[in-house]
Amino acid sequence: MNTVVPFTRENYAARMTRTVAQARAIGLDGVLVTPGPDMLWLTGYRPTAITERLTMLFLTTDRTPTLLVPILERPDAEAAEGTAETAVLDWADGADPYEVAGSLLRPDGRYGVSDSAWALHVLGLQAGLPGVVLHSLTNALPMLRAVKDDNELARLAAAGAAADATYEAIVDVPFAGRREVDVAADLANLLRQHGHEQVDFTVVGSGPNGANPHHEAADRVIEVGDCVVLDFGGLMSGYGSDTSRTVCVGEPTSLISEVHEVVRLAQQAGVDAVRPGAACQEVDRAARHSITDAGYGERFIHRTGHGIGVTTHEPPYIVAGEDLPLVPGMCFSVEPGVYLPGQFGVRIEDIVTVTVDGGLRFNTTDRGLRIVG
Amino acid sequence: MNTVVPFTRENYAARMTRTVAQARAIGLDGVLVTPGPDMLWLTGYRPTAITERLTMLFLTTDRTPTLLVPILERPDAEAAEGTAETAVLDWADGADPYEVAGSLLRPDGRYGVSDSAWALHVLGLQAGLPGVVLHSLTNALPMLRAVKDDNELARLAAAGAAADATYEAIVDVPFAGRREVDVAADLANLLRQHGHEQVDFTVVGSGPNGANPHHEAADRVIEVGDCVVLDFGGLMSGYGSDTSRTVCVGEPTSLISEVHEVVRLAQQAGVDAVRPGAACQEVDRAARHSITDAGYGERFIHRTGHGIGVTTHEPPYIVAGEDLPLVPGMCFSVEPGVYLPGQFGVRIEDIVTVTVDGGLRFNTTDRGLRIVG
Repeated sequence: MNTVVPFTRENYAARMTRTVAQARAIGLDGVLVTPGPDMLWLTGYRPTAITERLTMLFLTTDRTPTLLVPILERPDAEAAEGTAETAVLDWADGADPYEVAGSLLRPDGRYGVSDSAWALHVLGLQAGLPGVVLHSLTNALPMLRAVKDDNELARLAAAGAAADATYEAIVDVPFAGRREVDVAADLANLLRQHGHEQVDFTVVGSGPNGANPHHEAADRVIEVGDCVVLDFGGLMSGYGSDTSRTVCVGEPTSLISEVHEVVRLAQQAGVDAVRPGAACQEVDRAARHSITDAGYGERFIHRTGHGIGVTTHEPPYIVAGEDLPLVPGMCFSVEPGVYLPGQFGVRIEDIVTVTVDGGLRFNTTDRGLRIVG
Repeated sequence: MNTVVPFTRENYAARMTRTVAQARAIGLDGVLVTPGPDMLWLTGYRPTAITERLTMLFLTTDRTPTLLVPILERPDAEAAEGTAETAVLDWADGADPYEVAGSLLRPDGRYGVSDSAWALHVLGLQAGLPGVVLHSLTNALPMLRAVKDDNELARLAAAGAAADATYEAIVDVPFAGRREVDVAADLANLLRQHGHEQVDFTVVGSGPNGANPHHEAADRVIEVGDCVVLDFGGLMSGYGSDTSRTVCVGEPTSLISEVHEVVRLAQQAGVDAVRPGAACQEVDRAARHSITDAGYGERFIHRTGHGIGVTTHEPPYIVAGEDLPLVPGMCFSVEPGVYLPGQFGVRIEDIVTVTVDGGLRFNTTDRGLRIVG
């Protein structure tokens, strides 16, 4: 059995300290954190809902970490492991939370702010403190959550193993004659059976639907001869899984076999390009080069990958123009694809972590074109 | 059976036209809409996930409605009913979406922006166009979605009836000896059985847990004598339900009976204060006055209510300081509560719509203190 080591309040305190140090190092006066992945990673606190009521963690260079919450959410906030390391302030309905927030900031300060902070809150702060300068946290501090520690790596590896077990089981279910949504429900059940507490996506893109990379699953009945993209993941012990394999219902056409092999080689080329010090975009370039060489460059219409941790999309982004260097402990997807409108799509995706020796996959199931029934 | 009339592309077009007209009337050059309730209401489009990739609908006074999407989400976006009425532009990974967005805006323009738009996107726009002035949409145009049309009112009424059927069934399940999460699971199943496609919250706050207004449900085993707050809702045909009743497991103490009656009368006072032209805060004041008179004013620690529609929290907010006048067709919760830390809580909540004759409840189950087993 996989044993999860809980994060301690010391872990959260260390993350907060590191955040302030990183902010200071690039000339910021601190970081403003709203509910979502940053808040979860820094304090373990996940409000029951993200709403119009301002909740904000102030990690600044000039005061102790301070969490501002709506008064009716104070008990929940205080129950989180990491908030033991913060001062907690509250505000009541009818009061102006931006006035309280403003009093915790320098009027001419420069701060990072969580990417997913609501415009309502950003504009509320800016209105009260027109001299404040805000930067998106992933633009300002892309490295903040990007390098995982051993505890985080163990969780990501376990989530990957559960996704692999899901894949090994899904290839044995019937495909032909069932709807995409039925296979998607099987995927969700399997992810939960294998330990996921949350299922975020279960893409089943059969035939022409597979040519839409963000197609989820529809009522289309899967037919013999269909190429089917499977892309599924969620959270296990708070950390993400995200893997794709493409299968064929019965014997593939030569075009399906050809395209699948192009994508398989591109995915391998991407993983092979992973090494400490390489820029993120080199991984994208390697995968893309491989597909372009095979004549399908125009049909690879998305970046090669994205970081993964407490959320499924985070730095490092494996995309043209991203020159952030890879560092051991980073974790991200390598997921090239080729999409032929009106026909089918192929995507192959593993989560990969950077080690001193290169890329190590957390997904290790066979990447060959699997025939399903 | 409840028959839902689909929204047509003409409905969506009319909403977009109305949005631009309202923006123009207050001196804005338009409205910038991101995925979430505004996008859903204006176009019917709900992306599979809200991510770091910019999706934005531009409803401006100087051009046709234009939807900017990541290229890989274009097929999904174009499949939505309301996007037939917009121009669709796309951008690819590696490109700068804020450059494209900026080209659709006046450099010195004033725009409303969806409350829940990500900081990443707001700051991206501001960086490219430092002369642009942005306002939160609910602050700038609180009336935009606040007055419901007949189709919307029918959906909200049906969602309320389903929540009422859920309440009538939940009072017959066993409470004593079961955990809060078990009763919460019953609530979720009942909401789905009665037609909800999404369950958003199932609060079961027993004994001292009821004194935390945002407590969801925990492992606490419910005991005979417990006062239990039930607060549940979700979406049916895309529109929200949200109702609360407080029950007692076996005979109540005199304190529970007293507090429950205080809250019941306050809720009635709130509903009685609903009439066209009254300010939102008058409804809050009526409910609060009733509780304060009874000596529990300090223990009513939240606003009296919030609007409801395609999302559960939206204008009008029924809170001190809100002088927006009530208009027929508005729908909101009236949900006073009293919370005694360490002991119990009581909350009673109905969704109410404003009619020319006053407030009309969409939740009509008995508001007396129900004894459960």
